[in-house]
Amino acid sequence: MYKATVTIKLKKGVLNPEGMTIKRALNFLGYDNVKEVQTYKMIDIIIDEEDEEKVKEKVEEMCKKLLANPVIHDYEIEIKKL
Amino acid sequence: MYKATVTIKLKKGVLNPEGMTIKRALNFLGYDNVKEVQTYKMIDIIIDEEDEEKVKEKVEEMCKKLLANPVIHDYEIEIKKL
Repeated sequence: MYKATVTIKLKKGVLNPEGMTIKRALNFLGYDNVKEVQTYKMIDIIIDEEDEEKVKEKVEEMCKKLLANPVIHDYEIEIKKL
Repeated sequence: MYKATVTIKLKKGVLNPEGMTIKRALNFLGYDNVKEVQTYKMIDIIIDEEDEEKVKEKVEEMCKKLLANPVIHDYEIEIKKL
């Protein structure tokens, strides 16, 4: 059994409306020294598989097929044996 | 200048509809050995502040006031000097 942690970030230069909205709200609340806010998503996937290479291969496929949009996202995969 | 990374996770026992939807989609795509999917959010905040203690204090406030819902979320804060 493995746990794969996928980090999905917007590519450099792609606007982060959520981050900008949070920054504006924090500045509005008086946190004027907040200069930048970036948000990104983490996905933990528990996979019933014994071969680490196979896990890595499958999670790469999952990212390409479903989890990440190759046009705007970069992703990283971290794998841990449970 | 500091970077605070806030990890916001749903509390144990709180349903994760996004994770469940991703799991169903992955199983539908043929990844039957995917047993569980959890999603959570990360927020990087760049703060123009020189005192690390003050940064920690302010980010705690930001989490309580805006970033995390204390009823359903747990959060962790990591601080790094830039």
